[in-house]
Amino acid sequence: MTTSSICTIGDEILIGQVVDTNSSRISRALGELGIRTSRMLSIGDCREDIINNLRKELSQSDIVIVTGGLGPTKDDITKDALRELSGSQGYYEHPGQLAKVHEILRSRGLDVLDINRAQALVPDRAEVIVNRLGTAPIMVFRLEGGKTLYALPGVPFEAVGALPDVLADIQAHYPLEKIRHRNIMVYGIAESALSKKIEAWETALPADMHLAYLPDPLTGIRLRLSQFGGGEDGDQALEAQIGALKALLGALVYSDQDDRLECVVGRLLKAAGQTLSAAESCTGGEIAHMLTGVPGSSAYFLGSVTSYAIAVKESVLGVPAETIDRFGVVSSEVAAAMAEGVRRLTGSDWSVATTGLAGPDGDGVNPVGTVWIAVASKVGTVTAMRQYKNDRLHNIERFAASALDLLRLEIQKQLNR
Amino acid sequence: MTTSSICTIGDEILIGQVVDTNSSRISRALGELGIRTSRMLSIGDCREDIINNLRKELSQSDIVIVTGGLGPTKDDITKDALRELSGSQGYYEHPGQLAKVHEILRSRGLDVLDINRAQALVPDRAEVIVNRLGTAPIMVFRLEGGKTLYALPGVPFEAVGALPDVLADIQAHYPLEKIRHRNIMVYGIAESALSKKIEAWETALPADMHLAYLPDPLTGIRLRLSQFGGGEDGDQALEAQIGALKALLGALVYSDQDDRLECVVGRLLKAAGQTLSAAESCTGGEIAHMLTGVPGSSAYFLGSVTSYAIAVKESVLGVPAETIDRFGVVSSEVAAAMAEGVRRLTGSDWSVATTGLAGPDGDGVNPVGTVWIAVASKVGTVTAMRQYKNDRLHNIERFAASALDLLRLEIQKQLNR
Repeated sequence: MTTSSICTIGDEILIGQVVDTNSSRISRALGELGIRTSRMLSIGDCREDIINNLRKELSQSDIVIVTGGLGPTKDDITKDALRELSGSQGYYEHPGQLAKVHEILRSRGLDVLDINRAQALVPDRAEVIVNRLGTAPIMVFRLEGGKTLYALPGVPFEAVGALPDVLADIQAHYPLEKIRHRNIMVYGIAESALSKKIEAWETALPADMHLAYLPDPLTGIRLRLSQFGGGEDGDQALEAQIGALKALLGALVYSDQDDRLECVVGRLLKAAGQTLSAAESCTGGEIAHMLTGVPGSSAYFLGSVTSYAIAVKESVLGVPAETIDRFGVVSSEVAAAMAEGVRRLTGSDWSVATTGLAGPDGDGVNPVGTVWIAVASKVGTVTAMRQYKNDRLHNIERFAASALDLLRLEIQKQLNR
Repeated sequence: MTTSSICTIGDEILIGQVVDTNSSRISRALGELGIRTSRMLSIGDCREDIINNLRKELSQSDIVIVTGGLGPTKDDITKDALRELSGSQGYYEHPGQLAKVHEILRSRGLDVLDINRAQALVPDRAEVIVNRLGTAPIMVFRLEGGKTLYALPGVPFEAVGALPDVLADIQAHYPLEKIRHRNIMVYGIAESALSKKIEAWETALPADMHLAYLPDPLTGIRLRLSQFGGGEDGDQALEAQIGALKALLGALVYSDQDDRLECVVGRLLKAAGQTLSAAESCTGGEIAHMLTGVPGSSAYFLGSVTSYAIAVKESVLGVPAETIDRFGVVSSEVAAAMAEGVRRLTGSDWSVATTGLAGPDGDGVNPVGTVWIAVASKVGTVTAMRQYKNDRLHNIERFAASALDLLRLEIQKQLNR
């Protein structure tokens, strides 16, 4: 199996100022090609450390991916360490990257200084993949023993942007097993219960297939089915298993792509030409925030009311004071009245509402982590209760995701009628 | 200088399923004690890898901090690797941690199985710091040459919770230089402009003081002033420099603690016994989400309206159609009408509003990244325009933070009158 090490260079990571997200993104992408990451490493902007650590990684892994340490002010250290490590004598100026430096600075209305021009200099033995998103080049060093070192910029947006080219280069130079992946997005079931539900199917999977569970509070559980080294009929075999899994899970599956709940809700509404509004209490804007994070969401999302105070529930959303008195703020009845109120207010086809206790304080009646959610539409209002046991911020995320999931189910039901 | 290595154990990190945030938190805390982290490392759940890598880190650093690999199902590998590494013969059951295991499982209504009881077993040579937040013990191994290895649970909440005890143990066993830190939170100025503004002051800092810039889209720039090895008068010297810095920066400083804008706004409102509402267009719920992320925010935050559709701006917030026609949705006038509308609707003392273009699509008039913000109160309405050049999600964050900053400035002005 082809192996890799991922090495991040930068004092800002070592002192804890910045969290390294590049390594995780890169190792996930390598894993999908069937390359195992055996170590991740973060070291500082120190020439000797860079050389010693990278030498050691190269002795143990086929591929070493370095990110960071290539900005205009830090150039000398990392780049010169790579020059020495690769046995390069000097530097050459790469015309493609130099053109990119000019283009980027011009678009920002800046002059090209010597310090910028120097970014297009690379060690003799480096091949260059032009960085389309920044001024620092992506360098490829083909070393003894079939080892390759890739040096990527540290800025996450540029590192992730460079990945497709780097992966293509790896595929062109290493004999990798063909791996196929398919994702199924599931919401509304705990990981342990899910695993039990599909146990028989999973156990009967052919030896060349493997299932991974990837849980996340905002997206539920991503099931990734991978098929290794399959021939021409691999796609078909994978598709058949995905079909069987979807049949087993039914409405728990909200997407058979790598997707988010708010995107699925958006697509359903767009396709139906319908609109949505939200009334939030305990989720305090998180549902609107998730929905409006999707580009183009203004086509279906009209708006929302965050009714944190009881008076706002009454005056803006028209929740009757007696409903609150009789059933309490955290109740099916108040959730329903909020959803109906915001739907009336905005004139939307659909609405979703939440009322609950994110914590840390409770209301003396319901346990912290309780939420009532409601979905209203022209055919009526549906409510549901959920309970979680997280801290305040995670409870808010779970409340919002579970509300979007109930909405998704109700829209699907109505469209299938 | 005392040095450390931080090592994360767990396949879930190596395959990129989980981003390691523990290392960053730990190295920041160590840095504040004056301990330099020389390497961070992530390795898989493999006994041999664990032993070899930790041996190497122990040969190079005074302190090695290990997180992860201690859950009930993975116990054997990491714990047994640590047993061998520390020269322990066998295990002993730690009564304090066993009591904690019983307490935690009982609170969840679960029985204590053998697999749970085994969590309280530690190698002979391990000292134990009881993990108050979970079932896996925090182990301390005092090794040859004055080296110490600390093994912490991997769950971020437990690892961070264990830090104060671990730091206290380090302080008790290593002769550390005294370091003092003070933070100043700044909003509304670019890092480069800030650096220029305080250049003369920074250059004149005494040799035992150092300033760090820690920028973040949601909090602005945190300036951390550190004083190394100062004697009795160190506090006074640091305080004097902080005073000078605050005088230089004036209203750009929103806090002289390690703070967030939404917390400062909340404290100001609480102290004044006043209330707040919000009207959001382009920020789509982010301002409400930030405000309600603060525990106890229901004391001053009444609610908000996310008016994504123009019709909702008109019908719910009462923005006149002619104002929108005449000035456009992204305008000072519409921002002001939104703020005034939501203040009227909720009866709050203060309100804040945003209307802008987060991208990727523009409106053909204003560049993507433009936002108009408004703050309304009994003394009138103030508006301001800001421009950013980020992607959609970062623009939304910057819009929301700049709106909260304008609100903070206006509240301060009125309270100082």
